[in-house]
Amino acid sequence: MLGRGEAAVTVTGSLFGLVRTELDEVEAQLTATAQAEHPLLGPMLSMVLPGAGKRLRPALALLACKLGQAEPVAMIHMAVGVELLHTASLVHDDVVDSSELRRGSATLYTKVGNALAVLVGDYLFAQSATRCVATANLRVIGLFAETLASMCQGQIDEASRGNNPHLKVTRDDYYRTIRGKTASLFVLACEGGALLAGLPEPQIDAMRVFGEQLGLAFQLIDDILDFSGDERELGKPVGSDLRQGTITLPVVYLRESMQDGSFECLFDTAGPEALVAEIRSSPVLERCQDEATKLVTRAKAALKVLPRTETRQALTELADYAVRRNT
Amino acid sequence: MLGRGEAAVTVTGSLFGLVRTELDEVEAQLTATAQAEHPLLGPMLSMVLPGAGKRLRPALALLACKLGQAEPVAMIHMAVGVELLHTASLVHDDVVDSSELRRGSATLYTKVGNALAVLVGDYLFAQSATRCVATANLRVIGLFAETLASMCQGQIDEASRGNNPHLKVTRDDYYRTIRGKTASLFVLACEGGALLAGLPEPQIDAMRVFGEQLGLAFQLIDDILDFSGDERELGKPVGSDLRQGTITLPVVYLRESMQDGSFECLFDTAGPEALVAEIRSSPVLERCQDEATKLVTRAKAALKVLPRTETRQALTELADYAVRRNT
Repeated sequence: MLGRGEAAVTVTGSLFGLVRTELDEVEAQLTATAQAEHPLLGPMLSMVLPGAGKRLRPALALLACKLGQAEPVAMIHMAVGVELLHTASLVHDDVVDSSELRRGSATLYTKVGNALAVLVGDYLFAQSATRCVATANLRVIGLFAETLASMCQGQIDEASRGNNPHLKVTRDDYYRTIRGKTASLFVLACEGGALLAGLPEPQIDAMRVFGEQLGLAFQLIDDILDFSGDERELGKPVGSDLRQGTITLPVVYLRESMQDGSFECLFDTAGPEALVAEIRSSPVLERCQDEATKLVTRAKAALKVLPRTETRQALTELADYAVRRNT
Repeated sequence: MLGRGEAAVTVTGSLFGLVRTELDEVEAQLTATAQAEHPLLGPMLSMVLPGAGKRLRPALALLACKLGQAEPVAMIHMAVGVELLHTASLVHDDVVDSSELRRGSATLYTKVGNALAVLVGDYLFAQSATRCVATANLRVIGLFAETLASMCQGQIDEASRGNNPHLKVTRDDYYRTIRGKTASLFVLACEGGALLAGLPEPQIDAMRVFGEQLGLAFQLIDDILDFSGDERELGKPVGSDLRQGTITLPVVYLRESMQDGSFECLFDTAGPEALVAEIRSSPVLERCQDEATKLVTRAKAALKVLPRTETRQALTELADYAVRRNT
C-alpha cells in the first residue's frame, strides 16, 4: 500500500505500452475526479490525485482485463477505482503515522491538517467504491469490500505495535501485515481485472496468486530500499521506517541473527542509527532480496496457466521490474 | 449522522414492536462483528458497537423491508450495514472534531488516540460495505456508495468552515450540509429497504423522500436540543455546537434577526455564552421547531402512496416521535 519507492520509479514506456491508451484515460478521469465542484474539496484532491505515482496498480488491472474480453468502460472504472483506493489509503496512512513528507513533498496531512485529511481519505474511499460498483460485477464489488477490510486489518496490525522496537515481531507477523496493507490491493487489481475479462476460474485463481505474490515482493523491496536506497532518490532519510518504529523484515532478520537481548541493548544504547548501520553492513538485506526474488518467481509461475500472449509477457516483465528497481 | 440526542431517547417498545425480533438479530450481529479475532481490534470495536445508540436507522431499514417481500437474510445485512456506516461516521466525526465526549462518555478517539480511531473508522466502513454488498442488490450497493460520498461531502462542508462563527452561513448552506451528513443515511435505510422489499418505483421514490425529510428533521431537532435541552440528559453543556464553532440553523436565524454586524460584535465582546443565552430567550428555536414539524409533515405525506398497513402506521409514528422527543 505504501509504495514508498515509487517516486523515482522509471517505468519504461514499453512496460506499460500495451495499456498506454487506457492509462491516459485513467489519468484523465483521475484529474476529472479532482475537479470536484466543492470549493475546498477540489483543491485538496488536486494535491493528491493528478500526476502522482506511476499508476502501477491501474496498469496491472488493465493488463488483467486485456487477458480476456472486458467491457471497455468497466475496465477503466476498475483501474480508476484501484488507484483511488490506493490514494485513499496513502492519505490515511500519513494521518496515522503523522507523516510530514511523502516522496520528498509535504503530505496532504501537513498541508491541510488532521481533520480535513481524514475526510479527504474518506471521500476517496467513497469515490473508489463508486467506481467498483460501476463495474456492475458483483464479484468485483465483493472483492473491493474484502480488500478494504484486509487493508485496514494490515494497517491496524502495524499501528497496534506502536513505536516499540522492543516488541518481538516475527517473519509471519511481517507477512501477515504486508499481505493486508499492500498485497490485497494488488490482488484487487489482478483478480478484479481477470473477473471483468471473463477468464475461466483457474486463470482467475492464477491472477489472484500473481497479484498476491507480486504485492508481497513489491512491499518487501520497498522495505529493503528503505535501508539500501539513495536518500535523494527516495526523498527521505535511510532507515526511516525503523526510526518511526516500524519493524520490517530486515529488522526481523537482524534481530534473529543477534544474541538474545543484543538487539534491544544496541537500540537502547546506540539508537536506531546504529541498527540502520548494522543492517546495511550485514547480510540480511541480501537474504531479503533473495526472498523477494522467490516471491516474484512464484508470481510468474502462476501465469503459466494463461495462454502465451503479449499481455502475459507484459505481466512477466512487470514482475521482473518490481524486484529489479532500485528506487 | 451525529444523532447527538440519542443518548436518552426513550423509544417505546411499541414503536419498534413490528421489528423487535429482527432488531435483536441486528444487535447480535453487531456484537459478533465486535468479536474480531484481532487482539487489538476486538476490544476497540467493543467500545463502539454493542449496545450503543437506539438503532433508529436499522429500525427504519427493517420497517422499509417489511413494506414488501424482502429476503430475510438480506434484510438483516441491510440493517446491520446501515448501523455500521453510522458508527463509522461517528468514530471519524469525533476524530475530526477532536471530541472527548459522546453521550456523556469518553469517545474512542479519547480512549485509543487519533491513529487507531482513524483505522477503526476505516474498518467499520469496510464492514459496512461488506454488508451492503451481501444484499446482492446492485441498486442498494450503488446507493451505499452514493451515501458514503454524500456523508463525506456534508462533513467536509462543515469542517471547511472551520471554527469561525464570523463566517456567514445561510439557511441553504445549513440544509445542504445536513442533507449530506445526516439525511443521506436515513435515505439509505429507507430507500435501501424499499429496494430490497421489491416495491414499485413510485413507492421507492416515496421512501426516499420520507427518509430525506425525516433525516433533515432529525438533525434539526438535534440542533435545537443543543440549545434547549437539559445538560444532564444531553450529556454535554448547552450550546456545545456553537462553542465548537459549528453554525446550525438557530444561529443562522439569530444572525438574520440582528442588525448587520451585531452578531459578530456580541460574539467578540461577550463570547459564545452570550449568543447561547440570546438564542434561548429569542423566538428562533420556536421557528426552527416549526420548520422541523413541516419537514416531518412532508415525510409523512410521502407515505400516502403506500398501502395502509401497520408498517406504514409504524413509520408515521416513528416520524412523529422524531420531532416530539426532548432529548
